[in-house]
Amino acid sequence: MRALVAAAAFFGIFQEFAGADVLRVNADRLNRRIAELAEIGGTAEGGVHRPAFCLDDVKAREKVIAWMKEAGLEIRMDAAANIIGRLPGTDPRLPALMAGSHLDTVPHGGRYDGAAGVLAAVECVRVLGENGRTTRHPVEVVIFTDEEGGTVGSSALVGDVTPKALDAPTSSGTTVREGIVFLGGDPGRLQEAVRRPASIAAYLELHIEQGGVLASKGIPIGIVEGIVGIRRWTVAVEGTANHAGTTPMDIRRDALVAASRFVLDVWRVVTAKPGRQVGTVGQIRVEPGAPNVIPGRAVLTLELRDLEEARIQCLFEEIREAARTIEGETGVSFSFAPLGDAARPAMMDPAIREAIAAAAKELGFPAISLPSGAGHDAQNMARVAPAGMIFVPSRGGISHSPREFTAPADLVAGADVLLATLLALDARR
Amino acid sequence: MRALVAAAAFFGIFQEFAGADVLRVNADRLNRRIAELAEIGGTAEGGVHRPAFCLDDVKAREKVIAWMKEAGLEIRMDAAANIIGRLPGTDPRLPALMAGSHLDTVPHGGRYDGAAGVLAAVECVRVLGENGRTTRHPVEVVIFTDEEGGTVGSSALVGDVTPKALDAPTSSGTTVREGIVFLGGDPGRLQEAVRRPASIAAYLELHIEQGGVLASKGIPIGIVEGIVGIRRWTVAVEGTANHAGTTPMDIRRDALVAASRFVLDVWRVVTAKPGRQVGTVGQIRVEPGAPNVIPGRAVLTLELRDLEEARIQCLFEEIREAARTIEGETGVSFSFAPLGDAARPAMMDPAIREAIAAAAKELGFPAISLPSGAGHDAQNMARVAPAGMIFVPSRGGISHSPREFTAPADLVAGADVLLATLLALDARR
Repeated sequence: MRALVAAAAFFGIFQEFAGADVLRVNADRLNRRIAELAEIGGTAEGGVHRPAFCLDDVKAREKVIAWMKEAGLEIRMDAAANIIGRLPGTDPRLPALMAGSHLDTVPHGGRYDGAAGVLAAVECVRVLGENGRTTRHPVEVVIFTDEEGGTVGSSALVGDVTPKALDAPTSSGTTVREGIVFLGGDPGRLQEAVRRPASIAAYLELHIEQGGVLASKGIPIGIVEGIVGIRRWTVAVEGTANHAGTTPMDIRRDALVAASRFVLDVWRVVTAKPGRQVGTVGQIRVEPGAPNVIPGRAVLTLELRDLEEARIQCLFEEIREAARTIEGETGVSFSFAPLGDAARPAMMDPAIREAIAAAAKELGFPAISLPSGAGHDAQNMARVAPAGMIFVPSRGGISHSPREFTAPADLVAGADVLLATLLALDARR
Repeated sequence: MRALVAAAAFFGIFQEFAGADVLRVNADRLNRRIAELAEIGGTAEGGVHRPAFCLDDVKAREKVIAWMKEAGLEIRMDAAANIIGRLPGTDPRLPALMAGSHLDTVPHGGRYDGAAGVLAAVECVRVLGENGRTTRHPVEVVIFTDEEGGTVGSSALVGDVTPKALDAPTSSGTTVREGIVFLGGDPGRLQEAVRRPASIAAYLELHIEQGGVLASKGIPIGIVEGIVGIRRWTVAVEGTANHAGTTPMDIRRDALVAASRFVLDVWRVVTAKPGRQVGTVGQIRVEPGAPNVIPGRAVLTLELRDLEEARIQCLFEEIREAARTIEGETGVSFSFAPLGDAARPAMMDPAIREAIAAAAKELGFPAISLPSGAGHDAQNMARVAPAGMIFVPSRGGISHSPREFTAPADLVAGADVLLATLLALDARR
């Protein structure tokens, strides 16, 4: 208790002291704009339905472009339809400090996922101008194309959009390729959107946590350690379908009973060791799937996420070993097939993490480090530039939902940290 | 070993001795007719696709009616389109000894389920005639309508067909009502199909076991103790759907993990006590059902079967108690709703079971008693008359499949026991 009071007093004094020359965003403007942007594609439940490539995606971009121009940013669109606003720096030899996120939402999503990061970045540049502050580096604010459909825009920046990805269907009914054309890009010239590593000094992204860690601890700032790697498998469990009335229990080879043991083994293996690794069986179906037939086959998905690829592999091997034990004891067989492409972990830059931590401390905001369990544009950007992410709390850990909510003060805290981090990185020699 | 040799010698001597005056069915004719009947609706895999009310159902009936007439049976069709062939007895005051089963199959089913019982009954009557044997009681051979769709024909005999059952769709694309009309019955006059208990002395049904007990023990004759009762529930498991990447393991309320514990608890409770009760979770689906989302809801089916209703209730209560324990430990909630109508157990008549056992012993066929885990027309018939069932082995316990198979010698053994039982019941004062 004494320690807490002391800490509070320290932060209070510190804030008062820091207040004099630490630049702050305009809290009202930032939150007003979150609300105003949410009207484009706004739903009756208070959420936002604005999938990439729909008409509201265009309208949202137009509105934010106007705010970007007002902040002094010079706008261009690249071949992937990413919007990039640039503010020149005082030293023409320096690469850009980049910040942004995306404006598209999942179908029937919320107001904050993506929009928070773009509007915070725009706000930072606006505040610089209002205060007559210049930066040595150019500052770029980016609106990435179609993040929710597979980080399409940021993938293009690193030259990683495949023809297959371009032909994928989207929530707006078009293919990604058609969507990019609709937004004004040119899918035939995506190579021109690729950025040279030397052109970006750092990439920063503010984002809602989409998990409940910050909210449950009452901490406004999360310093992202990295974006977890993801591996997925389809697991087929083969038993013997049979009559549920005439087949005695002791001669059954019930695929669902074996699959149930497997689900509990996944839980046990993943939670057995300390750490923040997660494992999920999110899908299951059984065949033939009738109340009066013993399941002969179960097919389920296994997903493992962690910041370390080696740990994912290690968990997987333990889980496969557990499946072998079930096989031996039940006569039911398991097979594993990779599902989709593995996403490799993307570590955030240690120096940028330190800069974020220092900025939060300077501003008096409690902060903790944590992994990002969800994917973000930053995981692509980390491949061409030192990258950092600032998380702000998601109430109840809820995202991709109309109930997505970040308290105005938390959003402002995050934007203040973003601004302070930008300035700190700009000052760095 | 010595005991086995002695037993074999005993049976051999007994058979030789009994052979003189014990009536036997014509083994070749019976098995030839099984094959001939299987051509109607026969499939490339060697099975039979002959759902009730299809054209092949009519053709199969016509063929068997011809064999019934040849055996001296006088044919009539009741309002439920059941075919009843009657052989007069020598004592006009006595009620009928009835035997039969059904000719319809499940879609893409096998040759034996139903057909074996009808053809064995026809064979018995044919053999009586060929040997100039008369019976005191009239003998009736019955082909029940649409057994696989819910024992429709035998339900009509006991006055238990509801309007809802008549309007149910069938595998042939018509409703049951339309199907009965198609076969020549009159759904508006079903009341006329109801049999007075006093009109039936006994009902006997030979049927394939549809389980693997007889086959695995190498025993040709099963004396059915009764047909198990069945109760089914829909079980809804409510947790919280959440992001599989951003939600730490310790704050999840994963409906599938809870459901998996439940599936294993069902197994544990059902197998914990001696007895032949069975319990099955045959269906499961989870919502939202994506590899990257923690299941928020799981819906599964629970089915329990036993010869004693009280034991089913007792198992259910233990299972519900286990679910409460899971609720307490995980915060996930369970709810149970009855699924469909409960089928009450139908006990076979003790005196008829004894008669079957005596007949098998007289003929030298090893026999054991066992419950029927599947439903049969006999469970309706047991409500109006003393009933008995003779099971013959299903190879590998397989039924409702083109791979359904009963060895010719086993089928003949069953038919011989049926004939001997009929004669024993006929002789009874």
